[in-house]
Amino acid sequence: MAKVVVHVMPKAEILDPQGQAIVGALGRLGVTGVSDVRQGKRFELQIDGDVTDETVAEIAESLLANTVIEDWSVTREDA
Amino acid sequence: MAKVVVHVMPKAEILDPQGQAIVGALGRLGVTGVSDVRQGKRFELQIDGDVTDETVAEIAESLLANTVIEDWSVTREDA
Repeated sequence: MAKVVVHVMPKAEILDPQGQAIVGALGRLGVTGVSDVRQGKRFELQIDGDVTDETVAEIAESLLANTVIEDWSVTREDA
Repeated sequence: MAKVVVHVMPKAEILDPQGQAIVGALGRLGVTGVSDVRQGKRFELQIDGDVTDETVAEIAESLLANTVIEDWSVTREDA
Protein backbone atom coordinates (compact mmCIF):
# COMPACT_ATOMS: atom_id res chain seq x y z
CA MET A 1 0.00 0.00 0.00
CA ALA A 2 1.17 3.52 -0.74
CA LYS A 3 1.12 6.46 1.65
CA VAL A 4 0.38 10.07 0.79
CA VAL A 5 1.58 12.67 3.31
CA VAL A 6 -0.06 16.10 3.39
CA HIS A 7 2.01 18.76 5.17
CA VAL A 8 0.05 21.76 6.42
CA MET A 9 1.96 24.80 7.69
CA PRO A 10 0.84 28.30 8.72
CA LYS A 11 1.49 30.88 6.00
CA ALA A 12 4.76 32.79 6.51
CA GLU A 13 2.99 36.04 7.46
CA ILE A 14 0.84 34.33 10.11
CA LEU A 15 2.06 34.66 13.72
CA ASP A 16 2.93 31.24 15.19
CA PRO A 17 2.74 31.52 19.00
CA GLN A 18 3.42 27.79 19.50
CA GLY A 19 6.58 28.06 17.46
CA GLN A 20 7.67 31.11 19.43
CA ALA A 21 7.05 29.29 22.71
CA ILE A 22 9.36 26.50 21.54
CA VAL A 23 12.07 29.01 20.57
CA GLY A 24 11.85 30.41 24.10
CA ALA A 25 12.10 26.94 25.63
CA LEU A 26 15.13 26.13 23.49
CA GLY A 27 16.89 29.15 24.95
CA ARG A 28 16.17 27.96 28.48
CA LEU A 29 17.50 24.49 27.51
CA GLY A 30 20.72 26.19 26.41
CA VAL A 31 20.29 25.11 22.79
CA THR A 32 21.77 27.56 20.26
CA GLY A 33 21.71 27.61 16.46
CA VAL A 34 17.93 27.48 16.02
CA SER A 35 16.66 30.89 14.86
CA ASP A 36 12.98 30.08 14.34
CA VAL A 37 10.47 27.26 14.86
CA ARG A 38 7.12 26.85 13.11
CA GLN A 39 4.56 24.23 14.02
CA GLY A 40 2.12 22.68 11.54
CA LYS A 41 0.23 19.46 10.92
CA ARG A 42 1.10 16.23 9.15
CA PHE A 43 -1.55 13.92 7.73
CA GLU A 44 -0.67 10.41 6.62
CA LEU A 45 -3.23 8.96 4.19
CA GLN A 46 -3.04 5.19 3.67
CA ILE A 47 -3.91 4.59 0.02
CA ASP A 48 -5.36 1.25 -1.07
CA GLY A 49 -6.61 2.28 -4.48
CA ASP A 50 -5.67 4.90 -7.02
CA VAL A 51 -5.90 8.44 -5.68
CA THR A 52 -4.94 11.15 -8.17
CA ASP A 53 -3.11 14.36 -7.30
CA GLU A 54 -6.34 16.25 -8.06
CA THR A 55 -8.20 14.16 -5.48
CA VAL A 56 -5.47 14.75 -2.88
CA ALA A 57 -5.64 18.48 -3.64
CA GLU A 58 -9.42 18.40 -3.13
CA ILE A 59 -8.98 16.55 0.20
CA ALA A 60 -6.30 18.99 1.37
CA GLU A 61 -8.24 22.11 0.42
CA SER A 62 -11.62 20.97 1.78
CA LEU A 63 -10.68 18.98 4.89
CA LEU A 64 -7.08 19.28 5.99
CA ALA A 65 -5.99 22.90 5.54
CA ASN A 66 -7.58 26.27 6.22
CA THR A 67 -6.32 27.84 3.00
CA VAL A 68 -6.87 31.37 4.33
CA ILE A 69 -4.04 30.99 6.88
CA GLU A 70 -2.33 27.74 5.89
CA ASP A 71 -0.33 26.38 2.96
CA TRP A 72 -0.22 22.68 2.16
CA SER A 73 2.10 20.38 0.22
CA VAL A 74 2.08 16.68 -0.63
CA THR A 75 4.69 13.95 -0.65
CA ARG A 76 4.13 10.35 -1.68
CA GLU A 77 5.91 7.59 0.24
CA ASP A 78 5.93 3.79 0.02
CA ALA A 79 4.17 2.55 3.15
CA MET B 1 20.12 28.67 6.13
CA ALA B 2 19.21 25.03 6.57
CA LYS B 3 15.92 23.69 7.82
CA VAL B 4 15.39 20.66 10.04
CA VAL B 5 11.90 19.15 10.01
CA VAL B 6 10.74 17.03 12.94
CA HIS B 7 7.74 14.82 12.18
CA VAL B 8 5.75 13.67 15.21
CA MET B 9 3.09 10.99 14.76
CA PRO B 10 0.96 9.03 17.24
CA LYS B 11 2.29 5.51 17.83
CA ALA B 12 0.55 2.90 15.67
CA GLU B 13 -1.29 1.36 18.61
CA ILE B 14 -2.67 4.72 19.76
CA LEU B 15 -6.28 5.51 18.73
CA ASP B 16 -6.40 8.57 16.46
CA PRO B 17 -9.92 10.04 16.68
CA GLN B 18 -9.02 13.02 14.47
CA GLY B 19 -7.80 10.70 11.77
CA GLN B 20 -10.96 8.62 12.03
CA ALA B 21 -13.10 11.75 11.75
CA ILE B 22 -11.32 12.61 8.50
CA VAL B 23 -11.87 9.09 7.14
CA GLY B 24 -15.58 9.55 7.85
CA ALA B 25 -15.64 12.93 6.12
CA LEU B 26 -13.86 11.48 3.07
CA GLY B 27 -16.67 8.96 2.74
CA ARG B 28 -19.28 11.73 2.80
CA LEU B 29 -17.24 13.60 0.15
CA GLY B 30 -17.46 10.47 -2.01
CA VAL B 31 -13.68 9.99 -2.01
CA THR B 32 -12.61 6.33 -2.26
CA GLY B 33 -9.18 4.69 -2.11
CA VAL B 34 -8.12 6.10 1.27
CA SER B 35 -8.23 3.33 3.89
CA ASP B 36 -6.83 5.21 6.90
CA VAL B 37 -5.77 8.70 7.95
CA ARG B 38 -3.49 9.61 10.84
CA GLN B 39 -2.84 13.14 12.03
CA GLY B 40 0.40 14.31 13.63
CA LYS B 41 2.55 17.39 13.98
CA ARG B 42 5.28 18.92 11.83
CA PHE B 43 7.92 21.25 13.28
CA GLU B 44 10.17 23.30 11.01
CA LEU B 45 13.36 24.45 12.75
CA GLN B 46 15.28 27.23 10.98
CA ILE B 47 18.95 26.51 11.59
CA ASP B 48 21.49 29.34 11.48
CA GLY B 49 24.37 27.55 13.14
CA ASP B 50 25.50 23.94 13.47
CA VAL B 51 22.92 21.73 15.16
CA THR B 52 23.94 18.07 15.49
CA ASP B 53 21.59 15.11 15.20
CA GLU B 54 22.07 14.53 18.94
CA THR B 55 20.85 18.07 19.68
CA VAL B 56 17.83 17.62 17.42
CA ALA B 57 17.07 14.33 19.18
CA GLU B 58 17.26 16.10 22.54
CA ILE B 59 14.91 18.85 21.30
CA ALA B 60 12.45 16.30 19.88
CA GLU B 61 12.42 14.13 22.99
CA SER B 62 12.17 16.97 25.51
CA LEU B 63 9.99 19.55 23.76
CA LEU B 64 8.29 18.34 20.60
CA ALA B 65 7.09 14.78 21.18
CA ASN B 66 5.40 12.96 24.03
CA THR B 67 7.48 9.81 23.65
CA VAL B 68 4.96 7.73 25.62
CA ILE B 69 2.36 8.00 22.84
CA GLU B 70 4.26 9.52 19.93
CA ASP B 71 7.12 8.60 17.61
CA TRP B 72 9.29 11.23 15.95
CA SER B 73 11.56 11.35 12.90
CA VAL B 74 13.80 13.99 11.35
CA THR B 75 14.46 15.18 7.82
CA ARG B 76 16.89 17.91 6.81
CA GLU B 77 15.97 20.28 3.98
CA ASP B 78 17.63 23.28 2.37
CA ALA B 79 15.58 26.34 3.38
